Amino acid sequence: MDSFTPTEMTRVKRLGERGKYDRETVYGILDAGFICNVGYVVEGQPLVTPTSYWREGDHVYWHGSSASRMLRTLAKGVRACLTVTHVDGLVIARSGFHHSINYRSVMALGVAEQVTDDAHKLEALEAFVERLFPGRWAELRPVSKQEIKATMVLSMQLKEVSAKVRVGPPKDDDEDYALPIWAGVLPMSVTIGAPEPDPKLKPGVAMPEHIRNFAIER
Amino acid sequence: MDSFTPTEMTRVKRLGERGKYDRETVYGILDAGFICNVGYVVEGQPLVTPTSYWREGDHVYWHGSSASRMLRTLAKGVRACLTVTHVDGLVIARSGFHHSINYRSVMALGVAEQVTDDAHKLEALEAFVERLFPGRWAELRPVSKQEIKATMVLSMQLKEVSAKVRVGPPKDDDEDYALPIWAGVLPMSVTIGAPEPDPKLKPGVAMPEHIRNFAIER
Repeated sequence: MDSFTPTEMTRVKRLGERGKYDRETVYGILDAGFICNVGYVVEGQPLVTPTSYWREGDHVYWHGSSASRMLRTLAKGVRACLTVTHVDGLVIARSGFHHSINYRSVMALGVAEQVTDDAHKLEALEAFVERLFPGRWAELRPVSKQEIKATMVLSMQLKEVSAKVRVGPPKDDDEDYALPIWAGVLPMSVTIGAPEPDPKLKPGVAMPEHIRNFAIER
Repeated sequence: MDSFTPTEMTRVKRLGERGKYDRETVYGILDAGFICNVGYVVEGQPLVTPTSYWREGDHVYWHGSSASRMLRTLAKGVRACLTVTHVDGLVIARSGFHHSINYRSVMALGVAEQVTDDAHKLEALEAFVERLFPGRWAELRPVSKQEIKATMVLSMQLKEVSAKVRVGPPKDDDEDYALPIWAGVLPMSVTIGAPEPDPKLKPGVAMPEHIRNFAIER
């Protein structure tokens, strides 16, 4: 796959070796999660709202209530930043200065577009549910017209995009490796616990495969 | 503890029952994590940068390279938004519409201030290391003058702050509870893996207690 062209805004300047611009890395990071942080400006105040997202091809999607301040603001076509971060571990060094974090992040800049066509909206929402829970969409109570109306879906083309990745052990100053100080990595990952059935679950309803074996490639 | 006064900007409007403004909830969420997303504006473009943070009293701190675009921008006294989010689970409903996420998040708005005094800067960095790894600061190679200079520390008073929390099972439409569709919660949490000693670790250095029993209250 090809790469994104870094711009003045997206090029990773500090620790440039951590910057990645190839689609494989960017898509891999995006597809490993479902929570992003969306940045936008309201009356001069930058706001950062966590929300769920999904990717289809070279577009990223997010959604919510049609009454949401975040979505209504972005639907006007203002600049947005969508950031996704996975924390993989704490990097423990021999000096305070070289302590760090292992992570994979993507920052995507652009202008979002509202998905206004009901059929396209429904397709997008289906793709979101199916990505997390393959086979679930067909089992659900169908979406009502009122629900489609109450839901706003935004999409943003992935154009101005960069990834930033840190992996591996600490990088200490040469002379510090001789010190008798423990150093290494404390790995972190997201664990899925045992599914908790709704106390109001209708008796006899079996847990579907997409819940029992839920996994998101992180 | 008292509460933050919601402003037009921080009051949770959508699903207002999820909004929390008491310090106990806000501090609890902040103290349960160490990665935030900081929002700021550069040349009209909102940017969202993930970074580590810590809290002391009614201030939140973050730091990085003195050359960082994010820090240099915020040190000018422009508006910032610091958001922290913990994802606690996927909420699986009987309709696509009522699928949701269990989470705890805090959004803090304000203007950051640079910690310019070297002694205060050092104290702040010590507090950061000690919060994560009690007892570690005294074991580390001391911070050099050059390292202090190369590090920028920002603080922001917690004033315009709100939390947003969702817990519990799905909330389906009344008539949907009778449907034979599985519903419930897929809990998620962050797991700390076994510490990975640096391959260059000096032989004979024991793993300290603060690594062996590392925990962050989430």
